[in-house]
Amino acid sequence: MSAPAVRIREVGPRDGFQNEPEILPTAAKVELIDLLARTGVRRLEVTSFVRADVIPQLADAAEVLQRIDVPPGVALTVLIPNERGLDAALEHRDRFQEVNCFLSASEAHNAANVNRTVEESLTGLERVLGRARGAGLRCEAIISVAFGCPYEGRVPRERVWAIARRLIAAGAQEVGFGDTTGMANPAQVRGFFDEARTVLGDGVELTAHFHNTRGQGLANVVAALEANCRSFESSFGELGGCPVPAGATGNIATEDLVSMLHEMGLTTGIDLPAGIAAARRAQELLGRRLGSHTLVAGPVDWRDA
Amino acid sequence: MSAPAVRIREVGPRDGFQNEPEILPTAAKVELIDLLARTGVRRLEVTSFVRADVIPQLADAAEVLQRIDVPPGVALTVLIPNERGLDAALEHRDRFQEVNCFLSASEAHNAANVNRTVEESLTGLERVLGRARGAGLRCEAIISVAFGCPYEGRVPRERVWAIARRLIAAGAQEVGFGDTTGMANPAQVRGFFDEARTVLGDGVELTAHFHNTRGQGLANVVAALEANCRSFESSFGELGGCPVPAGATGNIATEDLVSMLHEMGLTTGIDLPAGIAAARRAQELLGRRLGSHTLVAGPVDWRDA
Repeated sequence: MSAPAVRIREVGPRDGFQNEPEILPTAAKVELIDLLARTGVRRLEVTSFVRADVIPQLADAAEVLQRIDVPPGVALTVLIPNERGLDAALEHRDRFQEVNCFLSASEAHNAANVNRTVEESLTGLERVLGRARGAGLRCEAIISVAFGCPYEGRVPRERVWAIARRLIAAGAQEVGFGDTTGMANPAQVRGFFDEARTVLGDGVELTAHFHNTRGQGLANVVAALEANCRSFESSFGELGGCPVPAGATGNIATEDLVSMLHEMGLTTGIDLPAGIAAARRAQELLGRRLGSHTLVAGPVDWRDA
Repeated sequence: MSAPAVRIREVGPRDGFQNEPEILPTAAKVELIDLLARTGVRRLEVTSFVRADVIPQLADAAEVLQRIDVPPGVALTVLIPNERGLDAALEHRDRFQEVNCFLSASEAHNAANVNRTVEESLTGLERVLGRARGAGLRCEAIISVAFGCPYEGRVPRERVWAIARRLIAAGAQEVGFGDTTGMANPAQVRGFFDEARTVLGDGVELTAHFHNTRGQGLANVVAALEANCRSFESSFGELGGCPVPAGATGNIATEDLVSMLHEMGLTTGIDLPAGIAAARRAQELLGRRLGSHTLVAGPVDWRDA
């Protein structure tokens, strides 16, 4: 089995379930994660160890990790907000392979999100990354609002690179760049990833995390592909993704991403009908229509199979 | 006032209103067209002269043309299905500037859509184009399912070019290529428009008409831009576009297209807030939520105005 041309991390079970107003029962989460883990996806962000009073949607993180049944070859990612979250996650060290930690590129967004300065977050994440690497975990760090901030507007690339360098030096093997409120455009994205590769070198994996806030998510994927980015994060059914403003869409839908990449002749390892089936089951369990386009339209049928 | 870098034809008043299950009152159409005509858009497809028993949604074509109040500089397009439609339209010759006629690249889709062979359609359109040019009208011809057919699957490009050559020889000054059921992908689109320009030459305007059926509409726009296509058709509010299957989205939304192009530094002549206001008014008049993303999210705010 050769490596797919494009690597996708499915983030719906964390990013999606976290943003559901009604808490999804643990059994439903386990069912959906087990379905996703059998779509051929290689990276799956399953939960986060956060304060239950802040994000009650993910209070069952330990139980989810214990109950899911994931085949070999699927790397499970746990989102880690801080050292206390890492302590809690490490109690289940045998149940996952990767951690993902995060901060924002702008002071205003970081303050709104985690009530810290960027420097305070960086200092904390340096400890998290060091300890996680010490525990044998693969480490991703996400830089939110890397393409623009809803509070500060333009975010200088130099600031993003400076943060990325600190994270890499602290042990991050993968750096994700989040278009957290969908401000990025394809021209910007192309220049961003061209420069990121030059500035950050070939020793680190660079991942794009786009939102479809203004319908431009897959257009940004195309631009990133042209700049040789080959790693993306997406959410099945178009779940989650911190919708700003209310009613706006967040993450790009995994099914739409996979459909486009496959049609372009790029492999992902994901079976599109299986991915659509997982999104359809999520739609049933959530009891509302989800935003994924390919979930409605189905795969392209070229009538030549 | 210099020409915009990208030309957009707003097709919502024809393509959108035609696909509404409940017929929009003429007064509502007139109000919306008058709003759209003041957004800065230079090309506006307003209606079609079709049989009222087949498409009752557009039975008021003549009344719409007479009642709308459109400022100078906006070219109005009328969709013409056949010579009888042209006869009806020519009774209002002073009220519009362009005609648009259409056929499908595949026999199966053309038969399903207009119950004719492609050759029969071509013969008819040659007469329509000749007479329309004779009446001093600018002529566009659209080739539907140019990127793939839901019945036949792959559509050979040579067939598309052969049809396009006939239409150009008959008088078409603009040829549009329709991704009628959203089968196109960016890699295909890039090659398609590169080849189209080579094969069809510089004497004709080439226009892309993409659908967002699988969320990939704007990604295809980016690919077409890279192949130097600078003319697009879209629909305000993401109205219309022959949704297949039921519930699927059709046309790309004008607001999403304009937002992306402006963010990329490409001018369109369209005032985005005015376009959003027109879509919002359509949403009110139709009484349901429309699919346009930027209608919900609003323009990108860089905080540096």
